Amino acid sequence: MKSPIEELEVKGKAAKAASRRMAYISTDVKNKALANIADDLLAKKDELLAANQIDYKEAEKAGMTAALLDRLLLTSERLEAIAQDVLAVAALPDPVGEVFDMRTLPNGLLIGRKRVPLGVIGAIYESRPNVTIDISSLCLKSGNAVILRGGKESINSNSALAKVVQGAAARAGAPDGAVQFIENTDRALVSHMLTMSDIIDLMIPRGGAGLIKFIKEKAAMPVVAGGIGVCHTYVDKSTDVAKAVAIAYNAKVQRPTVCNALDSLLVHTEIAEAYLPLVAAEWAKAGVEMHCDGKALSILKQNPPLKLVPSTDEDWGKEFLSLVAAIKVVDSLDEALAHIEDYGSGHSEAIVTQDYSAAMRFLNEVDAACVYVNASTRFTDGGQFGLGAEVGISTQKMHARGPLGLKEMTSYKWLIFGSGQVRP
Amino acid sequence: MKSPIEELEVKGKAAKAASRRMAYISTDVKNKALANIADDLLAKKDELLAANQIDYKEAEKAGMTAALLDRLLLTSERLEAIAQDVLAVAALPDPVGEVFDMRTLPNGLLIGRKRVPLGVIGAIYESRPNVTIDISSLCLKSGNAVILRGGKESINSNSALAKVVQGAAARAGAPDGAVQFIENTDRALVSHMLTMSDIIDLMIPRGGAGLIKFIKEKAAMPVVAGGIGVCHTYVDKSTDVAKAVAIAYNAKVQRPTVCNALDSLLVHTEIAEAYLPLVAAEWAKAGVEMHCDGKALSILKQNPPLKLVPSTDEDWGKEFLSLVAAIKVVDSLDEALAHIEDYGSGHSEAIVTQDYSAAMRFLNEVDAACVYVNASTRFTDGGQFGLGAEVGISTQKMHARGPLGLKEMTSYKWLIFGSGQVRP
Repeated sequence: MKSPIEELEVKGKAAKAASRRMAYISTDVKNKALANIADDLLAKKDELLAANQIDYKEAEKAGMTAALLDRLLLTSERLEAIAQDVLAVAALPDPVGEVFDMRTLPNGLLIGRKRVPLGVIGAIYESRPNVTIDISSLCLKSGNAVILRGGKESINSNSALAKVVQGAAARAGAPDGAVQFIENTDRALVSHMLTMSDIIDLMIPRGGAGLIKFIKEKAAMPVVAGGIGVCHTYVDKSTDVAKAVAIAYNAKVQRPTVCNALDSLLVHTEIAEAYLPLVAAEWAKAGVEMHCDGKALSILKQNPPLKLVPSTDEDWGKEFLSLVAAIKVVDSLDEALAHIEDYGSGHSEAIVTQDYSAAMRFLNEVDAACVYVNASTRFTDGGQFGLGAEVGISTQKMHARGPLGLKEMTSYKWLIFGSGQVRP
Repeated sequence: MKSPIEELEVKGKAAKAASRRMAYISTDVKNKALANIADDLLAKKDELLAANQIDYKEAEKAGMTAALLDRLLLTSERLEAIAQDVLAVAALPDPVGEVFDMRTLPNGLLIGRKRVPLGVIGAIYESRPNVTIDISSLCLKSGNAVILRGGKESINSNSALAKVVQGAAARAGAPDGAVQFIENTDRALVSHMLTMSDIIDLMIPRGGAGLIKFIKEKAAMPVVAGGIGVCHTYVDKSTDVAKAVAIAYNAKVQRPTVCNALDSLLVHTEIAEAYLPLVAAEWAKAGVEMHCDGKALSILKQNPPLKLVPSTDEDWGKEFLSLVAAIKVVDSLDEALAHIEDYGSGHSEAIVTQDYSAAMRFLNEVDAACVYVNASTRFTDGGQFGLGAEVGISTQKMHARGPLGLKEMTSYKWLIFGSGQVRP
């Protein structure tokens, strides 16, 4: 009998073998697999909900918080929404097969690059069973094989969903073994999976900060994880104040728990007295706690009750992920740029200005995945950027940067058409 | 007084700071820096040759082999050739600043990706002092800062060359600190450098297999190293035999010590008797030792004296880097594809065929950086592919694959031009 680690290795090898075939199956087969998944999610609804109820009741009994229980829960409506998401992925263009840079060299060689899948994607995730379907459909569409490792708390749900995917893919004619699911919930398998760099080309963790940190540190292969976003919005001296209020409000309040939300507001000293009371009044209505430097504090403390806290060194470069914002008054664009250079995490940075030169300098000089003029950093998202589905957001510079769509789950190979050429 | 490791950290931080400025200096400044380097290499020839003579004489005294001494040696002609190479890099298009995928979203946001440098490149190399100039000029042109760590045996040469680069770059107006050179030759600094993933975005090792293996294993950041090339040429049943002889001869003999040279020759059984004696006769003239499977052996042993050795399991998947080739007779294209899947290293693979379907299947199904029809694998090279200078060849799928030119030393950032947009 095989040990769980041997079984994992067998699954890995099967995924690797399947990935070679996945690279050249037709878009029709991939789309058919996705359509089948959407169909089966609805056709097997009772079965899936029953499996989910086992997880849910066990988690309830084990005292899981209401928030986590809600993440775990599948309902008829949620399954329908998941099926819709799968169909949306099917409707996206196939990233694989595009040929670019094709040209004829002086020696007659016809040469170009063809987009191909990365190979095998590993997915390690917690709680939300929809990730099983989400990652599987992104991988199928981009021609990648996938090894899924869900959390213990949703094992019955994930297992049932993975079977749906495997059945649907096989019926469409996708290669056997392209979707692997690890049934064993032993934590040691996660650690072993992270060493399998000969099999797994890219690891995608989905879950809490602890899980993501662990995977980033231990993985022997590249990891795509929602980057830490310490996001600044800088309000320049010549600014449309109403726009600057709306942008900072949106960036902080519209969804404060995510990586592209505003963390620090930098305000030019010449506009601070006109601007800060307005944005603070709006933020206060939403319950934002403001960690202010000395100048900001002296301006805001004369205003109606606000949640003001004097800032400390720790507020700069901190990702709050909550209704907290740090506020700093700066003397110049240069000071703002230097602050962002020192404290930004290379995620999303914005300037609000009517000054053309300031806008162009900010775009040129800020080193971040996404640099904005006069817009909310909340737009950093694959869907918002028009990439269709989003696999994650990268703050690394290698491979791909910012929101990752299907195309970013591919590599390329060089094709060379010769007629007997040899190298002189 | 600072310890050598503290000094390295200081240099790293200086390079990082300079890399921010390097991202947006003009092409003119970069080309001027390169022109200055070329000028100074000639103007300071005596000084550079004198520094090199110190290294050379010490190495000679220490008993360095003639081959290594030759690598170490700088001459007037060699300096002139190096200066020409620098001017060739100056003549290449600037990869930085290109904007692509620019478009207007339905909400009016104008969004696109702008090509930017990676940041800081680390270079760890041995022996050949020309690498100091080679890597520096590639980094300068692609807008990257660089930290150079040459070998102990060429420390005086490298130090003098690095000073040329630093002076030339400063005179052109490049940011201070963009080119860092580590004077201390303590091995511990290499190990520390490999941990500096917060500073160094990409590591480029140049040197022997031992150095490259060490760096690949220990580096905390991505590494671009000449990949292991286990390269197959498959001669299909319907083949122009003369072309197939010329291609296999070129792939094996033109430069046997490099990664894109032929290692295994796969021959369809229906053409083996017609083809193998011809290619073997040519190879024999060049002194190629042939490790033959049973069928190949039975065909070739009836021929005039050849260096024939029965193949063993170790011959398949081996990179010979010398005048040795493994030969296997296969029954079908499928068997050839399966063999390449099992034993290839994902570098360069070729089919020689007149059969259209076989050619297309090979291009589709082989998973390698470079896949050839009817041409020698020796073409896998940035210069040959029209990329200009070559930084290395990658057999990884992330970031870039195959020959890496200047463009592959870049990343991109998203630029978003708004007019007050907030996320609904």
